[in-house]
Amino acid sequence: MSDMAGLKNRGKTKEDVEERRKAAEGFTGVELSSISNYGFGPEAASKNIENMIGTVQIPLGYAGPMTIHGDNADGEFLIPLATTEGALVASISRGMSVINASGGARATVISDGMTRAPVLRTEGIEHSKRVVEWIDGHRTEIDEAVSTTTSHGKLTDIEPFPEGRSLYLRFTFSTGDAMGMNMATIASEAVCRLIEKETGAIMVSVSGNMCSDKKPAAINMISGRGKTVLAEATIPKDIVEAKLHTTAEAVVETNYRKNLVGSSMAGTLGANAHAANMVAALYIATGQDPAQVVGGSMTLTSCECVDGDLYISVRMPAVEVGTVGGGTSLPCQSEALSMIGCKGDGKARKLAEIVACTVLAGELSTLAAQAAGQLGQAHKALGR
Amino acid sequence: MSDMAGLKNRGKTKEDVEERRKAAEGFTGVELSSISNYGFGPEAASKNIENMIGTVQIPLGYAGPMTIHGDNADGEFLIPLATTEGALVASISRGMSVINASGGARATVISDGMTRAPVLRTEGIEHSKRVVEWIDGHRTEIDEAVSTTTSHGKLTDIEPFPEGRSLYLRFTFSTGDAMGMNMATIASEAVCRLIEKETGAIMVSVSGNMCSDKKPAAINMISGRGKTVLAEATIPKDIVEAKLHTTAEAVVETNYRKNLVGSSMAGTLGANAHAANMVAALYIATGQDPAQVVGGSMTLTSCECVDGDLYISVRMPAVEVGTVGGGTSLPCQSEALSMIGCKGDGKARKLAEIVACTVLAGELSTLAAQAAGQLGQAHKALGR
Amino acid sequence: MSDMAGLKNRGKTKEDVEERRKAAEGFTGVELSSISNYGFGPEAASKNIENMIGTVQIPLGYAGPMTIHGDNADGEFLIPLATTEGALVASISRGMSVINASGGARATVISDGMTRAPVLRTEGIEHSKRVVEWIDGHRTEIDEAVSTTTSHGKLTDIEPFPEGRSLYLRFTFSTGDAMGMNMATIASEAVCRLIEKETGAIMVSVSGNMCSDKKPAAINMISGRGKTVLAEATIPKDIVEAKLHTTAEAVVETNYRKNLVGSSMAGTLGANAHAANMVAALYIATGQDPAQVVGGSMTLTSCECVDGDLYISVRMPAVEVGTVGGGTSLPCQSEALSMIGCKGDGKARKLAEIVACTVLAGELSTLAAQAAGQLGQAHKALGR
Amino acid sequence: MSDMAGLKNRGKTKEDVEERRKAAEGFTGVELSSISNYGFGPEAASKNIENMIGTVQIPLGYAGPMTIHGDNADGEFLIPLATTEGALVASISRGMSVINASGGARATVISDGMTRAPVLRTEGIEHSKRVVEWIDGHRTEIDEAVSTTTSHGKLTDIEPFPEGRSLYLRFTFSTGDAMGMNMATIASEAVCRLIEKETGAIMVSVSGNMCSDKKPAAINMISGRGKTVLAEATIPKDIVEAKLHTTAEAVVETNYRKNLVGSSMAGTLGANAHAANMVAALYIATGQDPAQVVGGSMTLTSCECVDGDLYISVRMPAVEVGTVGGGTSLPCQSEALSMIGCKGDGKARKLAEIVACTVLAGELSTLAAQAAGQLGQAHKALGR
Repeated sequence: MSDMAGLKNRGKTKEDVEERRKAAEGFTGVELSSISNYGFGPEAASKNIENMIGTVQIPLGYAGPMTIHGDNADGEFLIPLATTEGALVASISRGMSVINASGGARATVISDGMTRAPVLRTEGIEHSKRVVEWIDGHRTEIDEAVSTTTSHGKLTDIEPFPEGRSLYLRFTFSTGDAMGMNMATIASEAVCRLIEKETGAIMVSVSGNMCSDKKPAAINMISGRGKTVLAEATIPKDIVEAKLHTTAEAVVETNYRKNLVGSSMAGTLGANAHAANMVAALYIATGQDPAQVVGGSMTLTSCECVDGDLYISVRMPAVEVGTVGGGTSLPCQSEALSMIGCKGDGKARKLAEIVACTVLAGELSTLAAQAAGQLGQAHKALGR
Repeated sequence: MSDMAGLKNRGKTKEDVEERRKAAEGFTGVELSSISNYGFGPEAASKNIENMIGTVQIPLGYAGPMTIHGDNADGEFLIPLATTEGALVASISRGMSVINASGGARATVISDGMTRAPVLRTEGIEHSKRVVEWIDGHRTEIDEAVSTTTSHGKLTDIEPFPEGRSLYLRFTFSTGDAMGMNMATIASEAVCRLIEKETGAIMVSVSGNMCSDKKPAAINMISGRGKTVLAEATIPKDIVEAKLHTTAEAVVETNYRKNLVGSSMAGTLGANAHAANMVAALYIATGQDPAQVVGGSMTLTSCECVDGDLYISVRMPAVEVGTVGGGTSLPCQSEALSMIGCKGDGKARKLAEIVACTVLAGELSTLAAQAAGQLGQAHKALGR
Repeated sequence: MSDMAGLKNRGKTKEDVEERRKAAEGFTGVELSSISNYGFGPEAASKNIENMIGTVQIPLGYAGPMTIHGDNADGEFLIPLATTEGALVASISRGMSVINASGGARATVISDGMTRAPVLRTEGIEHSKRVVEWIDGHRTEIDEAVSTTTSHGKLTDIEPFPEGRSLYLRFTFSTGDAMGMNMATIASEAVCRLIEKETGAIMVSVSGNMCSDKKPAAINMISGRGKTVLAEATIPKDIVEAKLHTTAEAVVETNYRKNLVGSSMAGTLGANAHAANMVAALYIATGQDPAQVVGGSMTLTSCECVDGDLYISVRMPAVEVGTVGGGTSLPCQSEALSMIGCKGDGKARKLAEIVACTVLAGELSTLAAQAAGQLGQAHKALGR
Repeated sequence: MSDMAGLKNRGKTKEDVEERRKAAEGFTGVELSSISNYGFGPEAASKNIENMIGTVQIPLGYAGPMTIHGDNADGEFLIPLATTEGALVASISRGMSVINASGGARATVISDGMTRAPVLRTEGIEHSKRVVEWIDGHRTEIDEAVSTTTSHGKLTDIEPFPEGRSLYLRFTFSTGDAMGMNMATIASEAVCRLIEKETGAIMVSVSGNMCSDKKPAAINMISGRGKTVLAEATIPKDIVEAKLHTTAEAVVETNYRKNLVGSSMAGTLGANAHAANMVAALYIATGQDPAQVVGGSMTLTSCECVDGDLYISVRMPAVEVGTVGGGTSLPCQSEALSMIGCKGDGKARKLAEIVACTVLAGELSTLAAQAAGQLGQAHKALGR
């Protein structure tokens, strides 16, 4: 190994980062001139990363503007999307254009709560039952334990799942406009410390995977995690034909054979064409956690032919987003959030609706393109 | 709507991007000074995005160096990771340090092939059977159809799934060092056009969701997609105690209650602590498709106590990566790939093993931290 | 076709059955002397079957007696089991013998409610929201609609799942000691007729598959259906060795590799060795619905080594049983229920606990046999 | 406890059974006059059960006759069904009548093989790879090991799934007309003993749950187990209206909202209305293993409106049936098999097609009834 002194460097200043970057160059033999050519002071990222040596720059484009009539997002939005997949932005934009011409998309958040599910070891069934009874009788003390760790988070539900010598407690928190995972983790641990003291159960892990964070879990698809969001649009028959070069019937058939029957035969959680693409591009642009694309990938897309028109909707059970905290205050990400009016307090549900409408547009465009037999050609022309 | 002339701009030059950026500023009323302050000529991204207005800069750090003894990746690797989740890089690095002290990680790719599964409409059972028989008897013509679309890709398998009036054909391709999704799509379409002509079946969608791309599908977990990769390490008892402040038994118990039982009760595909985190950070750093984090999220992590030592492994059924194409040639991403010696031809399996080893390190660190009851505290100290 | 007059016969008397049986003999050319040689008057089955021509006789044996300390089942029970799989009863009996020697099994019902989930067609998101609001504001009228259809069933919960132009309403009923599926269906339909009238939504199916009856559905595993039951036992180290010829560690390893890791890799709902075997044998013996074996097949079996002893438990999320109605009053089935003191009112939870303990014994025996490498041999000796 | 001498009785004669039955009566205080009133000599069941005390008699009716045009089943079949669920047989019969009026059902078996997947403990990745290599190079020795255990079974495929220190080997056997589970188990164990000897891997369980027997596992839905069977029928528009009192469009909508969207939202393997009902009734009647109803419950039902007519199909990935062995030679079951010409050698695929067609009829009838809003009423009128 070459000189790696810089690799031990833990600081957050520009100088620290440069020292570390040079050590990395020395270690790898690779000049990192692009990575080190970034546009902000690394102190801005001090809570977002360790061992920083620069940035990776993801191309950012926009789709839209899109007309959205949401309970929280209402207006015309130019959607920032970060991606390296050629044809994606163009495709989403096409979907938005069609939806706009049809009067826009409707959207709503139907539930909202961040979950964390510690697992405790008990002595077995009787002990687990006693712990659950203790919890049922001591919600005030539990809420107090939560309040010692957070002023924004409120514990809204505790669902117990006893199994053998394990007891899973699925806590749901309202977390304001933060995505809330860390808030939920810290509060859950505080509650578990109280439960340990009072009941003798032992917290084995603050996350027992019934949360479930960043894993494709049916419990999130069914019970929701973060925001559960619906979006829909109706595309008149003539617009389907003129702009999408297909018919409502053909799109419905594509959705049926591909998203519904195909996904079922593949053993899939959710049923969609490529929801994860839109989620990833918008999450990365706006400083969300890209590993939570997993939650977005469980989207259900449905299409119906209503009097010859095309009705399309998405149901996203687990949109785990925030407009404060995480990567949202980094310079580029902050600007991207501002582009859609989603920076700061009071905006998280608005962001969630924009996510769902963006997914809706991308689903529409891809399903229509596949219905029209164009997918391969689109990639050939625009991307690689 | 304000003046949006720039929003119609379709070009790829710096000037085009600037005109478009200004129009976006005009439309949104937001100054995009950080987004527009990037370090490369936008022509470099011409195949990666449309409607480009700049970039989003993701903090990039490193974990390691990590000692890897893989069939394809062999040596010490400094792993580039792009994330905004504080504590993540530090945690992965901790895992790598422990694995290094234990002699490093072993890794191997056990299967490799990109899939695409068109769905065709047939007239029913008899017709589907005839189509399958035609395919079985005409592999040469089919291979020729593939070869008209790609010189790198080879069709290695066709698995038919007839259902009612739908026939799903799961094609597997070897795609060299490209991730290969587009290659597979284009080749699949060519094959289907041939099948349509010869059999009268109609391709309804070039992707029938039995592929399955960017969706959490059991078929990928079971049959694999992209690279299926295994990685493992054995941590001696004294290192577990000295460096992780816990015991092999405690980590095994955490893995048991959390990853195995908890994931089962949550109805999860895969069983891991947070594989998606490592996958996302490494995919974004190296220009992979971040929506394919979904495939990585189906990782199975197992832990065993072997004579007091801790054996840990990951099984990743769907590591969909490439070292050419996609976002890999963008300036920062290219440097990140070079840091781990994974730029260009002959490197895709090496990259896949590095992905698996990075996941292994992150899983080890988190499971050990949870075993030691430290997760909440780590986030409190390092992140938000 | 031969003379089939008897095949149109719809009556329920012995003469009707005989006429029909003879017509069936005429049609098939097969003498049905065993099928027609049954021990009760066919009027007793008049609500259980149509087109009756006789019975099929399933061998009935017993396992146990088993010592059960349940919240509802407490004592020594001789368990009636109907099966044609050689070695099964012997194996379950072996498990019971081991559990008895260890002080018996503990069991409890942790939730109880039969579900039915109609699906209504709405005009989309806004309409679905209005329907849900109407429901929230009119629980009294809804309860009255239920009460017009049943005096035993009470509606305890309504969980709405809006999606596009579909609205799923998962109703939960307490159904006394009936399994309750029909009660729930009829009451759900009455409620939906009211909702249709008041909101303009249209019931498309009284079962929208989010119930979910007789299908392997994660929603039942997570939210429960019928009774959710836990059972457990601790087998002292010396008994494991003396009676099962293995060790706690070996059984734990078998459960780990087989039920936990193997089931995860196979994409399974639940994790057990052969719970469906015990469920089927006991359901058939006692007049339960054998198609509901599906709910029982999602059992989670866990094993732990506690101070050298073997702790084993089962978690059964969906035990859909009744002690009145269905097949419970048929002569043989009624006797089988009486054998375990589960005939009639006030016994359904007791039966559910006995089911779980029987599954526990069967799981213990099979896991121990596999741990000891004996499975193949057992079948060779006893069965075919 | 009362005198339990008879409970230890292990014999198979009528006298043994009587002694045992009396002891059971003594123990439980219940007179078992119906259970002990059965129509055959208990020696006939000597390989099917232990601790026999009599039988349980399940009402047996018939549905049909049904017109089937299968690759193996071709003609008119009167289908024996054993059930205690009122309205079930009538409903299935209605479906058959409609299908007959439409020209009958078509059916085919598209794959056939019984699986068993032992799990071996290895030392890790390298060891697992060596074991797999050994297997690849020694298929002749492996086939010889199989042939020492069975003359009917042939090993047709070995699929290896290495994971950490576990290696799962999914063996597929052709098993003639036996369901074949025990044959596969015994042969698998023989193969594993050979592998153990040659490679040092240790068989931890002859079933590692990737088989997967009697559990709802995606691997069976995707890769098949036993017979994978398709069946279909097309019901002309006027017959749908005249006999089902609904329209093709309404049935398609019911299937869409219920079986496809509803099942997806519930996290279901398969998508059907009540396939398990038909499977259970036919399996019990014909001496199949009723726990294997689980495999049948993963049926996918699809409906399409084709020029106003109703196309309906079922895809059953795991029909695990036999016409020799198991319960097939018991007197009543043997007669029931004979009714459909499925007794003995060369009949297993025929039986599988009859299963699928019976499921098809039941699905059609229920979907149509729900489409017509009749489900609740049907149960009110005929059953309980």
